Formats: sequence, structure tokens, C-alpha cells
Amino acid sequence: MLPPSLKKLIDELSRLPGIGPKTAQRLAVHLLRSPHARIKPLGEALLSLQDGLAFCEECWHVTEESPCSICSDDSRDKTQICVVEEVLDVIAIEKTDKFKGLYHVLHGVLSPIDGVGAEQLKMKELFDRLEQHPEINELVLATNPSLEGEATALYIQKQLADSRVSVSRIARGLPIGADLEYADSVTLGKAMLHRTDY
Amino acid sequence: MLPPSLKKLIDELSRLPGIGPKTAQRLAVHLLRSPHARIKPLGEALLSLQDGLAFCEECWHVTEESPCSICSDDSRDKTQICVVEEVLDVIAIEKTDKFKGLYHVLHGVLSPIDGVGAEQLKMKELFDRLEQHPEINELVLATNPSLEGEATALYIQKQLADSRVSVSRIARGLPIGADLEYADSVTLGKAMLHRTDY
Repeated sequence: MLPPSLKKLIDELSRLPGIGPKTAQRLAVHLLRSPHARIKPLGEALLSLQDGLAFCEECWHVTEESPCSICSDDSRDKTQICVVEEVLDVIAIEKTDKFKGLYHVLHGVLSPIDGVGAEQLKMKELFDRLEQHPEINELVLATNPSLEGEATALYIQKQLADSRVSVSRIARGLPIGADLEYADSVTLGKAMLHRTDY
Repeated sequence: MLPPSLKKLIDELSRLPGIGPKTAQRLAVHLLRSPHARIKPLGEALLSLQDGLAFCEECWHVTEESPCSICSDDSRDKTQICVVEEVLDVIAIEKTDKFKGLYHVLHGVLSPIDGVGAEQLKMKELFDRLEQHPEINELVLATNPSLEGEATALYIQKQLADSRVSVSRIARGLPIGADLEYADSVTLGKAMLHRTDY
């Protein structure tokens, strides 16, 4: 009942993560009614997205040239590597202005149920990097404090048990502005366990 | 901190309705990691969306040729017009297989707070159509049973108070599968008020 070109756009949109068929329909009809000058930039941005974009071969962050601007920045502390799951996690940590070392993007987490093992991640690249760069002496594990994120952190920590590199994990505790009364008991338990000197 | 082409895609995606900056970031990174063969169809579908697509000049449904397949279908009842808000409402009613007349898509609802008056909708086109087609004798108002939808239906009904066309409104009552106990009182009130002979 819908014209083929509209149908095709709905199909393509509903393949995106978190966009179901109803949302895809709504977006497609919105786009259909938008002036062409507003759709064109989106279409072009999509088609040219991967032109000239690559992943940094040091840290696997997205970049226009490898090594990326972070890896090639001489003012950064090359002895610390922060391990994150995704490209956007680098941006989130950079925004805090509290870390001056380098990054390593795993591009995922260990998740046997989804068929994701160490081979699907940039895990081997991490260990190779540690071997090739003896100046690295701290690895900050900043994977998400989720089941998979914790498992991935634990895996890396175990692999490096006998290594010269000291391994740390980002703090887990109460988020700023939280209410003790409403905090879940796992978070509150971690906050007690990892309390710091005042 | 992000390459310009990725930044541009995030900006364009976050202009879509219901997609905030965080969702746009997530979608953009997902697309970045997808194989080019999967992004290309989406980009092309966007760019070619409006080529050859138009709105039917009778009923304002989306179509490849005007009049649309519904308006030009001789087997349909040309005495009934169902007035709906959006293109997707036509599809929803067609799926029920309970209406064999023609449609009229308003492309919105009256909403003074958003600056939408009768001029922004296909309202004049509706009244012109009723005048030009004396065979039309029933108008089924199928705008949403929301505040704006009801106001729009009331507006149309008032405009046609002295006309030969009989105006009806889709039934409002309990949805199939609902539980009386949990129904909101406005819906239940409507269901009592508009009860039908059994």
C-alpha cells in the first residue's frame, strides 16, 4: 500500500539498532514531508561517512589519519592506557579532563551468549601493544560496570597477572547527586567496600 | 574530538524527531562500524526518497502518480470520505478491511499552541472536494481521539453543520482485550455514552 521508495526507506531505517518498524515508519513519513534540502545532507553524510575515516592502528579510536590525534599528541602521558569498550567512551572520558594518558578501544565486550570472544575484540592488539611499548606501566580498565564489562575487565586483569603492568579499575560507587536510600544494594555494597580515606 | 564527517552525521541524525543527541551518537557509531554495503542502501533510499513521490491531489495520500491507487479504484465507494491526520493512518485503516470509501489526509491537526491552523492543513482542499463532488454524502472523521484530534473533528463538524454531507466520528470506547477495572474514566464514560444496541 506504500510506494516502493518509501517502503525501502522504512526497511532500511528499521535495521538500525533501537529503531522498530513503527519508529521507522514515523521517521520515514517525517522525512518524506521534509523539504529536500533537509534530507540531502543526511543522505550525503551517510554515503560519505566512511570516506577518509579509519580506526587508529594504535588505539582503535576513530580518526581521519592513523595514528590519531590523541596517540600522536606528545603532551600526553604515554605510560598510561585507558581501556574502553567503545569510541564514544573515549569522548566521555576526554570530557572529564581527568585522564591524560592514551586509550585503547576494544570495540565491544566479551559476551559468550552473543558469540563475542577475545578474537572479535581488539584484545590481541592490546596485549601486543603492551609488549611493544615497555614504557606503558598502568592499564586503567574503564569497561562498563555491567556483567559483560566486569567479565571483560576480569579477563584482562587475569591475562596480565604476571606482567610488569599494574592494572586498575575505574571506581564503582554512588553517582554524584544520588540518594543512599534509593541506591541498589550492589552499588552501595561497592561504595562501602571501595571507600577512600577522607 | 570526533572527525568532522562523523560529527556531521550525528548532527543530522539528532534533527530527526524522537532522536536525541545520545541516540544519534549511538546510531552514528553503529553505522560507522557497519560494512559500507549496509550503509549505502540507507543513504541512497534517503536521497531518492522524494524522486517520483508526490501527494495525490484528490486525497493527499502519498503516491507515485496522482490520483493515487485508492482514488482511481473504481470498485471503491466514492460516497464516503474518511478524514485522517497522517499518511500512516490510511495504511492502518486499510489493514482493518472495514472501510471501502476514499480518504482525505489532513497532514496534521489543529494545534494553536504549535501555530497550526486550518491553513496549514489540507482543510480548504477537503471543503473544496466536498463541493466539487456532490456524490459524497458521508464524512467519517477518523482523527486521533486526542485533544487536538477531537478539536479538529469538532471544527470540521461545525463547518459542515448546514451541509448535505452527514458527518460521523469513529467510535471511542474500550479497546479489545481491555480490562474495565483499569480503564481510564474518560474512555469508560465514552464507552457508556456511546453504547450500541445488542
